Amino acid sequence: MIQNRQRLYEAILAKQSFLCIGLDPDVNQIPASCGTGVGGMERFCKEIVDATHDVTVAYKPNLAFFEQYGAAGWAALERIVAHIPNECMVIADAKRGDIGNTASRYAQALFEGLGADAITVTPYMGEDCVRPFTAFGAGRWTIVLALTSNVGAQDFEFYGDPPLYERVLEKAQAWGTPDNMMFVVGATRPHHLARARALAPEHFFLVPGVGAQGGTLEDVVKAGWNPQCGLLVNSSRGILYASPDSDFAEKAREAALELQNSMAHCLKATT
Amino acid sequence: MIQNRQRLYEAILAKQSFLCIGLDPDVNQIPASCGTGVGGMERFCKEIVDATHDVTVAYKPNLAFFEQYGAAGWAALERIVAHIPNECMVIADAKRGDIGNTASRYAQALFEGLGADAITVTPYMGEDCVRPFTAFGAGRWTIVLALTSNVGAQDFEFYGDPPLYERVLEKAQAWGTPDNMMFVVGATRPHHLARARALAPEHFFLVPGVGAQGGTLEDVVKAGWNPQCGLLVNSSRGILYASPDSDFAEKAREAALELQNSMAHCLKATT
Repeated sequence: MIQNRQRLYEAILAKQSFLCIGLDPDVNQIPASCGTGVGGMERFCKEIVDATHDVTVAYKPNLAFFEQYGAAGWAALERIVAHIPNECMVIADAKRGDIGNTASRYAQALFEGLGADAITVTPYMGEDCVRPFTAFGAGRWTIVLALTSNVGAQDFEFYGDPPLYERVLEKAQAWGTPDNMMFVVGATRPHHLARARALAPEHFFLVPGVGAQGGTLEDVVKAGWNPQCGLLVNSSRGILYASPDSDFAEKAREAALELQNSMAHCLKATT
Repeated sequence: MIQNRQRLYEAILAKQSFLCIGLDPDVNQIPASCGTGVGGMERFCKEIVDATHDVTVAYKPNLAFFEQYGAAGWAALERIVAHIPNECMVIADAKRGDIGNTASRYAQALFEGLGADAITVTPYMGEDCVRPFTAFGAGRWTIVLALTSNVGAQDFEFYGDPPLYERVLEKAQAWGTPDNMMFVVGATRPHHLARARALAPEHFFLVPGVGAQGGTLEDVVKAGWNPQCGLLVNSSRGILYASPDSDFAEKAREAALELQNSMAHCLKATT
């Protein structure tokens, strides 16, 4: 459990990494050596964790990939989360969002049941959908979607003047603190990432979209850095599927190390 | 499976009901006679279904109440869904919303894995988060959040001019058809429900907020009716917890019947 942003910053300095590894285990891409079905998915994720935990500060399991297999998938996810070393943050990428009494249950399911340290939350329905997560106390993080990295972000996140994502950044800050709330801000629109940083100078940003989606680490650091780093940069496919063969864990480590090296340079340049 | 809105309208006429019963089983409110924990929750829901399936066209299990119990909760939900008679629509109230490859997995998890006929979806991230659900083919419904019934709706759903919820109603119509897409429009703001109906004249609306939250069936019908009824009105607490004792199923039936009677009057007045 990482109690606040100072502790998170210390974890980042200790590992010289602000990497988050997305666990999106696609059964069609998992090497045959792991086995098939839910069992293969579980083994694959655990081997990825074993090969990378010293160079990443967080793992972000994407719940859809597990829910897809119903109760069996959920049980596998529980075992994978239990397998992740305590010093790594577990971000349940669930993008939940529902009214108070329901949101409380999602928070309980993911913080307590699953043992996640952080949960991604959709802000569409407003304050009463976010507060039940931030109410959970120290060491439990709520990560509110602000500006996502996908093409469809154009449809509503940019609606209005100023655009909706700016409104979300401004309003949602009142529902938590920089010590228990982060924002999702994508890497694919660096100009807007800089704008988000201006609006939320103290919060950590969870940044998807580096790699396959076209964002670069350099642009992200330039636009989103703050005095405590302020960034968790996610990579999923580039690490998980670095090799389609039985050397996948070794190649995943190499891909993670490459990112971590670049991150260490950024950290050295600023501290 | 209900193939299109004409079939849904026929089901409504046959039962003289446009009721949807929300399955939000709160272990603190479940009568002791059902037992405790996940087992009690399962028994409670099944008895509610047994007592009400002839007067309701849909059930809407709220996934948070099951996820809260991890793999065991998920397995109970699977058995409850299997227990619901085929002629009733099962709406997975999941409020999912994520990018394409993830959304496809949520759709698969809930349409195929769980056997739901419909899924509620959050539009925040835009088109690529909604299309994977509507792509699932006939008889699978995507229910997009437009204007929710909670207080927090004020924060973002009314942002901009015209308000964001109107923008959602306009844009999202292009991502499905009235035969595989509905919208969530709350009962608590009848004036805006009428506006939503003007913007989406042909779509069914799933309407929460009648009862405990203050909306009335009369206002909803006045504001939201269309030539094929166009409404699924949800009630959860008023039916589930009509009695705290072992007569809960009987009292739930009475509460559901009372609503169904009012609905039959509305249907007779318009056909």
